[in-house]
Amino acid sequence: MTFSVDLNSDVGESFGVYRIGMDREVLNYVTSANIACGYHAGDPLVMEKTVEMAVKNMVAIGAHPGYPDIMGFGRRELNVTPEEVKAYVKYQIGALYAFAVSKGVKLQHVKAHGAMYNMAVTDYGLAKAIAEAISEVDKDLIILAMAGSQMIEAARDAGIKAASEFFADRAYNDDGTLVSRGIPGSTIEDEELALERVIEAVEEGRVETITGRSISLKVDSICVHGDNPKALRLVKKIREGLEKNGINVVPLSRLHL
Amino acid sequence: MTFSVDLNSDVGESFGVYRIGMDREVLNYVTSANIACGYHAGDPLVMEKTVEMAVKNMVAIGAHPGYPDIMGFGRRELNVTPEEVKAYVKYQIGALYAFAVSKGVKLQHVKAHGAMYNMAVTDYGLAKAIAEAISEVDKDLIILAMAGSQMIEAARDAGIKAASEFFADRAYNDDGTLVSRGIPGSTIEDEELALERVIEAVEEGRVETITGRSISLKVDSICVHGDNPKALRLVKKIREGLEKNGINVVPLSRLHL
Amino acid sequence: MTFSVDLNSDVGESFGVYRIGMDREVLNYVTSANIACGYHAGDPLVMEKTVEMAVKNMVAIGAHPGYPDIMGFGRRELNVTPEEVKAYVKYQIGALYAFAVSKGVKLQHVKAHGAMYNMAVTDYGLAKAIAEAISEVDKDLIILAMAGSQMIEAARDAGIKAASEFFADRAYNDDGTLVSRGIPGSTIEDEELALERVIEAVEEGRVETITGRSISLKVDSICVHGDNPKALRLVKKIREGLEKNGINVVPLSRLHL
Amino acid sequence: MTFSVDLNSDVGESFGVYRIGMDREVLNYVTSANIACGYHAGDPLVMEKTVEMAVKNMVAIGAHPGYPDIMGFGRRELNVTPEEVKAYVKYQIGALYAFAVSKGVKLQHVKAHGAMYNMAVTDYGLAKAIAEAISEVDKDLIILAMAGSQMIEAARDAGIKAASEFFADRAYNDDGTLVSRGIPGSTIEDEELALERVIEAVEEGRVETITGRSISLKVDSICVHGDNPKALRLVKKIREGLEKNGINVVPLSRLHL
Repeated sequence: MTFSVDLNSDVGESFGVYRIGMDREVLNYVTSANIACGYHAGDPLVMEKTVEMAVKNMVAIGAHPGYPDIMGFGRRELNVTPEEVKAYVKYQIGALYAFAVSKGVKLQHVKAHGAMYNMAVTDYGLAKAIAEAISEVDKDLIILAMAGSQMIEAARDAGIKAASEFFADRAYNDDGTLVSRGIPGSTIEDEELALERVIEAVEEGRVETITGRSISLKVDSICVHGDNPKALRLVKKIREGLEKNGINVVPLSRLHL
Repeated sequence: MTFSVDLNSDVGESFGVYRIGMDREVLNYVTSANIACGYHAGDPLVMEKTVEMAVKNMVAIGAHPGYPDIMGFGRRELNVTPEEVKAYVKYQIGALYAFAVSKGVKLQHVKAHGAMYNMAVTDYGLAKAIAEAISEVDKDLIILAMAGSQMIEAARDAGIKAASEFFADRAYNDDGTLVSRGIPGSTIEDEELALERVIEAVEEGRVETITGRSISLKVDSICVHGDNPKALRLVKKIREGLEKNGINVVPLSRLHL
Repeated sequence: MTFSVDLNSDVGESFGVYRIGMDREVLNYVTSANIACGYHAGDPLVMEKTVEMAVKNMVAIGAHPGYPDIMGFGRRELNVTPEEVKAYVKYQIGALYAFAVSKGVKLQHVKAHGAMYNMAVTDYGLAKAIAEAISEVDKDLIILAMAGSQMIEAARDAGIKAASEFFADRAYNDDGTLVSRGIPGSTIEDEELALERVIEAVEEGRVETITGRSISLKVDSICVHGDNPKALRLVKKIREGLEKNGINVVPLSRLHL
Repeated sequence: MTFSVDLNSDVGESFGVYRIGMDREVLNYVTSANIACGYHAGDPLVMEKTVEMAVKNMVAIGAHPGYPDIMGFGRRELNVTPEEVKAYVKYQIGALYAFAVSKGVKLQHVKAHGAMYNMAVTDYGLAKAIAEAISEVDKDLIILAMAGSQMIEAARDAGIKAASEFFADRAYNDDGTLVSRGIPGSTIEDEELALERVIEAVEEGRVETITGRSISLKVDSICVHGDNPKALRLVKKIREGLEKNGINVVPLSRLHL
């Protein structure tokens, strides 16, 4: 049996003169790019260039909408109504759509950013608002979200496809949630171990939790980061490790979702 | 011979709790709505509601992109590069597109706002950036711009359709430009006179300038405002006056451009 | 015995071309003005003009800091750290200070806005951050806050004076908190009743709660609004009613706090 | 005879998660810090930390106000009115004042940023607005500006002290203005040459222009940058070179202005 999996990363998070992320490098390895849309990060010039780079690298393009909070990088919970979130997500998908269509490509997916993502993991009302925003703009867009989260539920209810992602460098709780940053052991520092966990997750749909139990998990995509040289090295290692193990690394749109 | 003309107005310029414009009322009379896209005014919730109202009133929808300057309402010249303007215009068209497609309608046109519009009247580089942004997002979008301006030129060069607008309440110079606000006589206060000028502009393609000369002018659309009850009364008068004179009032997309 | 009380209102919440509030009128009646500082509302030009109007009307000036969220008018909870809030409050006090000192007057007080205020009613960590920001900028500034709230506690701990405010048009729960908007009876619509409650609060330090009990309450200031003609009428009624009852209406700085 | 000169650099231009500038390092060498105030760069947390670092390094603190344009880093000309600029400058001085007073220090100076600075070099109306804003907030604040510019004129007219700065790494035209970036030879790449020019400027008040002429120039401060390791090396070289030549390097407030 041959396994296939997507590799996704957040990119296009620079803003004005401010540079963040090693986008050019990470786009050599991932198959799906989550592009910031100007609300938590990114700006129109950055979006234009990021889309262009992604297209050149044959990387599928997704919108990465966040809360309107550049000062907080969209990481702070904001008590928005579902109606507000729905409108914010539509706005940002549309904004990115314009750059994609300019380059002759379609958007593939949407992945919420930061606090919006985290809140929608457990808040069905918010997840529903996000899923409906996507579905109303384009029913073919895939939502990329945490396995087992309310976003996966909401996607089903809204009639759009969902892809479940696995975090390459994060520890899991027994209930399939991530171990909060700050708790010892919340991140997987050992690159070999990270790769092993990724391969087990893809091939067996299982991960060992922080308590030592093995839990099952749906894995369509691996989430990686390109913030710094160390992170980038892990991306490269995972990409090569997956291929060495005969696993196809392909964009979400090529998977059976 | 039967004449046809479009009637356009800026709408959707409220922001957060801040209300501006009598959108609900003005949408009863105009045929094309220029909807703010969150850069100089408007926000995602306002855009959603404005698109909804326009659709209900069968008013055609256009993007009204401006400079990123809500504090200055997009009225202050900003020394942007053509590359920046191009990206800003794409971003804003895309953002509005998402709300239009959600309601099952297409965007009809794009009309630049405030300082972006004014600067692009005479600056070909800027006008070209706007026209190319439009053409790269959707070649069927019509640019709505001042008669004889560089935007009309740039539209032709970019291969998109252009519509020329006539300002119902403004005086014209001999060269076809508007008399600057602040100069005595720059605005037409007399509603009867305003209507007469509009009808002459539509039927004969002519307007009497502030010096008393008569100049020729292309007129596809009449620009009106809905800021206050007095402005609204003029919109109603013009709409009714046009129809009384047997002139069809139809969206831009129904005109031979 | 003669009673004295302050009358406070939020002003200076216009932004750019967007007008909100009947500031000019309300400043005829109140003794302390809470002036927005550009984070949830207001902008430098508005601040300049509002300070000028307050000075002309002999109204004491206070900073009204909020969360950085003009789109949400500072009404949405934002999950900021105490360190962030502290810096935001300092920034906004300083910004207003510049306009006050320009007109030769001192700042009198600080009153947090919207979600920042509401969260700090019960969150001591947040309240402490606000109180310390005030105390570090100017130990003579008075914090104006809800009676019995954590902000009053935190002010004492930070060594600054606190003034407790009573809401003229809101119903109270038995524990001294406000009845949430949306619950029937949460606002006092009857102007006569509102005035009676205000006078009882000032003279007896008591209010009848929504369940009919009478609870005691510290009252240094009455919070009123100037959003619309109806609200303004209530302000006028309260001002005149207080004076008719022999109660001095004076700024916070004139009270024994 | 002993010469004295100030060494100034822009700092505190990071924003949210975005880092820019080697502030910690450059504050070891300069005597005056121009701290961004949240309009073109910087945010309250960054301001707090930057003031703290400057105080620890005994570096004098100045406000570095810019246009409200973080996306463009305040480098784009914005067609503001003098009234707007005046209010923007007051707002930003006040905001920084709050952090300085929190640490028990006074503000020393104000230096406009980017497009605001550049426009005010030749535009007296704008320069006057800046100078008056400073004078109305605190008559003891020194304006730091280009030698011979309208800001120096306006400072005199507004009754505040002015300090003239010399750009260590820029070529000069015969009229004392900077050679525009983009023109070959506009920047001085050779560090030895840069240092020689600085010393000649300080000791003799002269600089050799791009055409080879020698012109006279008032020099109270040397403007240096801390954007990158190369820039930082030049700062260190200039600081050490000045001292090796027996020139005192002291804050503006210690100079006879």
